[in-house]
Amino acid sequence: MKSFDDLGFAKVDLDRTRRQGAAEAVYCEGKTAEQTAAILASLAAAGETPALATRLDAGKAAAVARLLPDGARWEYFPVARLGRLGAPRPPSERGAVAVVCAGTSDLAVAEEAAITAETFGCRVDRIYDVGVAGIHRLLAQEGRLRAASVVVAVAGMEGALASVVGGLVASPVVAVPTSVGYGASFGGVAALLSMLNTCAAGVCAVNIDNGFGAGVLAARIIGTK
Amino acid sequence: MKSFDDLGFAKVDLDRTRRQGAAEAVYCEGKTAEQTAAILASLAAAGETPALATRLDAGKAAAVARLLPDGARWEYFPVARLGRLGAPRPPSERGAVAVVCAGTSDLAVAEEAAITAETFGCRVDRIYDVGVAGIHRLLAQEGRLRAASVVVAVAGMEGALASVVGGLVASPVVAVPTSVGYGASFGGVAALLSMLNTCAAGVCAVNIDNGFGAGVLAARIIGTK
Amino acid sequence: MKSFDDLGFAKVDLDRTRRQGAAEAVYCEGKTAEQTAAILASLAAAGETPALATRLDAGKAAAVARLLPDGARWEYFPVARLGRLGAPRPPSERGAVAVVCAGTSDLAVAEEAAITAETFGCRVDRIYDVGVAGIHRLLAQEGRLRAASVVVAVAGMEGALASVVGGLVASPVVAVPTSVGYGASFGGVAALLSMLNTCAAGVCAVNIDNGFGAGVLAARIIGTK
Amino acid sequence: MKSFDDLGFAKVDLDRTRRQGAAEAVYCEGKTAEQTAAILASLAAAGETPALATRLDAGKAAAVARLLPDGARWEYFPVARLGRLGAPRPPSERGAVAVVCAGTSDLAVAEEAAITAETFGCRVDRIYDVGVAGIHRLLAQEGRLRAASVVVAVAGMEGALASVVGGLVASPVVAVPTSVGYGASFGGVAALLSMLNTCAAGVCAVNIDNGFGAGVLAARIIGTK
Amino acid sequence: MKSFDDLGFAKVDLDRTRRQGAAEAVYCEGKTAEQTAAILASLAAAGETPALATRLDAGKAAAVARLLPDGARWEYFPVARLGRLGAPRPPSERGAVAVVCAGTSDLAVAEEAAITAETFGCRVDRIYDVGVAGIHRLLAQEGRLRAASVVVAVAGMEGALASVVGGLVASPVVAVPTSVGYGASFGGVAALLSMLNTCAAGVCAVNIDNGFGAGVLAARIIGTK
Amino acid sequence: MKSFDDLGFAKVDLDRTRRQGAAEAVYCEGKTAEQTAAILASLAAAGETPALATRLDAGKAAAVARLLPDGARWEYFPVARLGRLGAPRPPSERGAVAVVCAGTSDLAVAEEAAITAETFGCRVDRIYDVGVAGIHRLLAQEGRLRAASVVVAVAGMEGALASVVGGLVASPVVAVPTSVGYGASFGGVAALLSMLNTCAAGVCAVNIDNGFGAGVLAARIIGTK
Amino acid sequence: MKSFDDLGFAKVDLDRTRRQGAAEAVYCEGKTAEQTAAILASLAAAGETPALATRLDAGKAAAVARLLPDGARWEYFPVARLGRLGAPRPPSERGAVAVVCAGTSDLAVAEEAAITAETFGCRVDRIYDVGVAGIHRLLAQEGRLRAASVVVAVAGMEGALASVVGGLVASPVVAVPTSVGYGASFGGVAALLSMLNTCAAGVCAVNIDNGFGAGVLAARIIGTK
Amino acid sequence: MKSFDDLGFAKVDLDRTRRQGAAEAVYCEGKTAEQTAAILASLAAAGETPALATRLDAGKAAAVARLLPDGARWEYFPVARLGRLGAPRPPSERGAVAVVCAGTSDLAVAEEAAITAETFGCRVDRIYDVGVAGIHRLLAQEGRLRAASVVVAVAGMEGALASVVGGLVASPVVAVPTSVGYGASFGGVAALLSMLNTCAAGVCAVNIDNGFGAGVLAARIIGTK
Repeated sequence: MKSFDDLGFAKVDLDRTRRQGAAEAVYCEGKTAEQTAAILASLAAAGETPALATRLDAGKAAAVARLLPDGARWEYFPVARLGRLGAPRPPSERGAVAVVCAGTSDLAVAEEAAITAETFGCRVDRIYDVGVAGIHRLLAQEGRLRAASVVVAVAGMEGALASVVGGLVASPVVAVPTSVGYGASFGGVAALLSMLNTCAAGVCAVNIDNGFGAGVLAARIIGTK
Repeated sequence: MKSFDDLGFAKVDLDRTRRQGAAEAVYCEGKTAEQTAAILASLAAAGETPALATRLDAGKAAAVARLLPDGARWEYFPVARLGRLGAPRPPSERGAVAVVCAGTSDLAVAEEAAITAETFGCRVDRIYDVGVAGIHRLLAQEGRLRAASVVVAVAGMEGALASVVGGLVASPVVAVPTSVGYGASFGGVAALLSMLNTCAAGVCAVNIDNGFGAGVLAARIIGTK
Repeated sequence: MKSFDDLGFAKVDLDRTRRQGAAEAVYCEGKTAEQTAAILASLAAAGETPALATRLDAGKAAAVARLLPDGARWEYFPVARLGRLGAPRPPSERGAVAVVCAGTSDLAVAEEAAITAETFGCRVDRIYDVGVAGIHRLLAQEGRLRAASVVVAVAGMEGALASVVGGLVASPVVAVPTSVGYGASFGGVAALLSMLNTCAAGVCAVNIDNGFGAGVLAARIIGTK
Repeated sequence: MKSFDDLGFAKVDLDRTRRQGAAEAVYCEGKTAEQTAAILASLAAAGETPALATRLDAGKAAAVARLLPDGARWEYFPVARLGRLGAPRPPSERGAVAVVCAGTSDLAVAEEAAITAETFGCRVDRIYDVGVAGIHRLLAQEGRLRAASVVVAVAGMEGALASVVGGLVASPVVAVPTSVGYGASFGGVAALLSMLNTCAAGVCAVNIDNGFGAGVLAARIIGTK
Repeated sequence: MKSFDDLGFAKVDLDRTRRQGAAEAVYCEGKTAEQTAAILASLAAAGETPALATRLDAGKAAAVARLLPDGARWEYFPVARLGRLGAPRPPSERGAVAVVCAGTSDLAVAEEAAITAETFGCRVDRIYDVGVAGIHRLLAQEGRLRAASVVVAVAGMEGALASVVGGLVASPVVAVPTSVGYGASFGGVAALLSMLNTCAAGVCAVNIDNGFGAGVLAARIIGTK
Repeated sequence: MKSFDDLGFAKVDLDRTRRQGAAEAVYCEGKTAEQTAAILASLAAAGETPALATRLDAGKAAAVARLLPDGARWEYFPVARLGRLGAPRPPSERGAVAVVCAGTSDLAVAEEAAITAETFGCRVDRIYDVGVAGIHRLLAQEGRLRAASVVVAVAGMEGALASVVGGLVASPVVAVPTSVGYGASFGGVAALLSMLNTCAAGVCAVNIDNGFGAGVLAARIIGTK
Repeated sequence: MKSFDDLGFAKVDLDRTRRQGAAEAVYCEGKTAEQTAAILASLAAAGETPALATRLDAGKAAAVARLLPDGARWEYFPVARLGRLGAPRPPSERGAVAVVCAGTSDLAVAEEAAITAETFGCRVDRIYDVGVAGIHRLLAQEGRLRAASVVVAVAGMEGALASVVGGLVASPVVAVPTSVGYGASFGGVAALLSMLNTCAAGVCAVNIDNGFGAGVLAARIIGTK
Repeated sequence: MKSFDDLGFAKVDLDRTRRQGAAEAVYCEGKTAEQTAAILASLAAAGETPALATRLDAGKAAAVARLLPDGARWEYFPVARLGRLGAPRPPSERGAVAVVCAGTSDLAVAEEAAITAETFGCRVDRIYDVGVAGIHRLLAQEGRLRAASVVVAVAGMEGALASVVGGLVASPVVAVPTSVGYGASFGGVAALLSMLNTCAAGVCAVNIDNGFGAGVLAARIIGTK
């Protein structure tokens, strides 16, 4: 059998990430630091930056940092488990993305969405201390929510945040269910179903824990591409 | 084989309903009008009233009315699909049950809960025009919600009403998911999961569309038994 | 028990539909023609038009037409099962919505999305003869797909259309799974899962068969609100 | 990116726990000892005690103990995996909570419910040696069960305990499914479904393993709030 | 294409029923009266009686009766939806089968099990007025339950009857979940899972509503074959 | 809104069916007789015959027959619910397809597979009287099974036929689960899972009840295309 | 809070195991060696032997051996993960239990069933080299299978063994699904569904991997109790 | 209890693998290196090579290598986690198998399929850099895809690759879902459902991650057996 290198996968993955010309990213789950660094380096050589490395834990991120070419601009965001190669795009003037969640537990996903949106040129307003069980706190942020051009609503457990926010704003709401919960949350399925069945119009959902996808979608909606 | 009558089922069901001494009911799905009337008559003869007949459609209810003994006090509630034999218990002074839902679609289940609670001696405050997608309308009823000793929250689709209400009150909240919805609502499962995973404390759930069960539970909590 | 009318539901539903100020709609499943007409008439009296009546079959639509006030502008779209009261908003100049599907089976949902988007002021480009099993036909429409500001991708069975379209365009893609299929399609669940797990970035999903929701979301993204 | 501390989450979580004014708790799954201690200290400073730390393992509990201010009253309950800051409320005279389960396997959840109820002012009667497969043992406790104002029934496997208890008492029954079991128990789903489908009236369910929620609900029903 | 008759299916099904030499039966769902009668006549001609026709509604049963040869011994049991051709086997002396259920709703399945067991030579003791929510009534039958060599426990909803009975007797318990219930009963799945996860030893389960299978199994256990 | 005809769907579906150049078919579920006939006529005009109309009930088939052009060769197969326009391809010499099932219940799907394979040029050997519960009958056909170049194994209920056949032959086995069964068969899911988890190598599965797909696949394997 | 010992659980579990008087067992998952030994010692003191300790890994078993009283008869069966205290009952003359499985992977569950049955007085015939994909091998054992009074069929993956065996014998078949498999086997669910939907009469199922339950049931059927 | 060796499993498994005479394999999950080596050695002694050891990790593979007889031809393929004993069969002239996947993540399964097919005499064309989100890249390989006699399409996430490839070729397509993904991919279920519901004819599916099964099936289709 051919060795792994012979199969030419670094090249392959580079090609894959390049294909849409808008949101370069490397999904790091199951890739080695060497593979990740090689793909990132190729992207940088091709001018395809900024590029994100998602689901990258801190240990692997440190190894990637050592493997990248000297002088590469590399940042690591531990809460979001994101690595970024190259400078983020300059913020668009067109409107802001509000990222909302209820607190600590959903923070990793919310930050993944926020940093992704920032990387691809969005201004982001983080509203991280709101939950439906404390509805007055959420309503105290109604002005910031309405000021945003897109709202990313991140929630685990019962995922009701998306419905309440969807009823407060007239802009598109991207709902991100998280795997936070236990028992009958089924790893985020309860929140996902809640978001798909929302009684509020103008809400759509992405996959469980897919903060990256929500950030890219928000950036596309803003039109910063 | 013995005939149906030989098997003595009218007696059986009477015995079953009597067993808890608190909330007599006949579940009518799959029973004939004759069976239903016979069980109800037996309950009346034994002084076990008021008694409810649940999931009773209008046609069967009319037949039951004709079959019951002369002079029996019989009422039929078409929205709730409930029949009631005998006078409701006098309302307790101890506190009221608030029954909340978002509107037309969940009305049948909400009324089943409300009439059940009234039958077993509760005062009921119906708050039927509130939904999480119109959160300000819900908050306008905060006073009525807080005034209740128990809140029954009825909701289909994403079922977020239970979480929001649960965050507004300090009394027990009985959540009733309904089968209202389509697609990934899975006949009420989305709402049920939402209610089980609520981030608000003090909330419990009964089975999908089980307005009767919620009404009985509310009455037990009020202590009118 | 109070009668249905006493409970004031026509008023309630009117209030509900008005709450978001952007996409008035009445979900007709389980409502009578009388209820539907009453809510629509109230909306018209309040100037809240255009208003849509969704999941409205032809028979009920005819009854609604007879019940509406003289002179009301009322249209019925049988394929989409939509009724519309009042004139659609004038088309925005900002961009168009492409609605894509593979053919006859998904047409009802695609049309629901398209007419909803048109009603709320979008120009719509219908691309209804493309499917992933005939990929060259889909690619022949690449220009029209890329020209749109938002793409609504409607598909049943395996739902792969959303992924392929998501890889072709740089604009947001709203994926609508349909209940078309049999066996292990589970009423649209296979397509829904496919869309949530898409390998293409920039794609989100709404509930199964929720063409209305996709149309509203597309209109919000276009910014015609 | 901002550091974790910059995002101000200790403050956020404090605010969240305070919101309902009745049952302060910190869900410790996924929080560090430092985060947990900071939130608890804030609660104590604000006079919001007693406060519970749920799902807290022994190692983290020891670290929390070292981090709390001198003189803080802190207890750790290893079976229930609960930490408690501050004195429990004095026991109410209004009635007792019976907590029932079948034995060793469900003990952690039962104790979480019992200690939670005690913390918020309930007298608790633990009946831990009863199961439906030994029905005579359960019936031997019928008097204690009937004497309680609320019964919390904790069971894994087939969860039948809730139905049998529900048939014995006239007070509300809060059923708590546990994840005890294997194979087709699906992590507690079998017990949960059993409890939702109970043939006994007056029973409601909380999420799988949610002893805390059952304890809070029992306290609210007792009215010790 | 060959016509249906050309394909020789009457012969085929006859062969199939004969294959185990112990419990001849024709599953009538989806078969015409003509097909059913032809198979039964073939069985009779081959001396393979008694033979049962399961899931046979009354109308089709009447048609079968007309189509069978003159002089055939044919009985129809409407509650069980069973037809029987030929005389039942003489009752065995070896022991009896107790069939238990909670009442009217589960009667059809219980009778299917009872008549099947009787047909294949078992004495059957029907105990049809017991349910777990009325546990004292069930215990009043403990003697009859213990006297049986096999117990068939039929239950819908939460299916707890099997566990309680399993704890009372030392003989094998065959549990039959029924599709009686609504909402989260999922057509009998809740009862099935309950029975598979029973905490009582010596219990096994057959498919939902499979009274026939339970009756055959009971007969095999008794050893009347 | 444009009328249905304006949208040009007859043309569309024609194009769709033509795309693979090998197995023309029209899925008739949800199509009118007029739509079906129009698509078939277009296929005939383009020389794209033989063409199959699947899931076509007898009434619609009769209407299609009347709508087709004079002189069209049209056959209807009621058991398989298939219509065929044009002559089948001449049988290939390369090998035969064995279609096996256990009897009456699975016949419709087995015939759909058999006629599809015949239409596209395969010789078919129908072995319709074999089931795993009568294993000696199945083994009596071992010679015919081994003589086939491809085996299509059709089974509902537990679907074990595919595994047993897979262990008897060295040729590819295409397993078709059917929706025959009740209770925990979940409309064919039990059989599907059984086939996907087969311990025999060389077995693959198609969707539940997808006899057409199995027939096309068998024809492609034979290489008659 | 009371300490664990104060709660008296060793006593409780002893009482539980004693309740049925026939099949003493301690389920060791989640119990310490100390708890296990204490319960076993109590059983021995009460003369309730033989007693089994199920799901006991080798390390814990060694610790239990050290903790048991001197002179206790203790055996450990590593493949079955069973410990046994006291002498097995003498083998019954009434008939034998055949335990069948396909090979190595299902061995642990098969041995758990076999040793359990032996412990409670059954003669056991192990037939461990048969699988449905090698049907001739299975048929070569037909004589041994038919000679048994009960057959326990253990299988993972697609679980078809139960159906084939059920068609070969006239005695009761207890089917035990195992969690052996991957992908769509869902931890044994595929095999479980296969067994519940078997087309062979006289087959019942126990929970996934529940070899102990199957062994107890077999012993009860044999009547060695 | 007999020891493991006494039970004779090495012999058993050898017999099992030999039963089909075409695709010898040992499934190594849960087997020790000793067991694996013993079975392989027996196969070699019987001339049953080439033989594959599947799901074999590198550490166990090294141990197997040491345990095999001197002179045995043994190769290990780490990406595929396959060991091979004996020389592969000479490549057939009859046609090639194309194995396609999207990249790194699905590589292990794709290689398992490819090496299995090569082992049993197929020429394999690996096309590993194609995915539906980059459709032009896939189309660039249309010639190679069409040149193959069988296509094995390996994909995780939404599994759309099978549908697109199925629409491009006229040869059979064997779809292999992989467990690559997260959230609502449910360990490969989303891809599996997508493949079962494909709108392209001529596609079948094997179990999740079952590259070995796909390789064997491809070899059988090619006819190299």
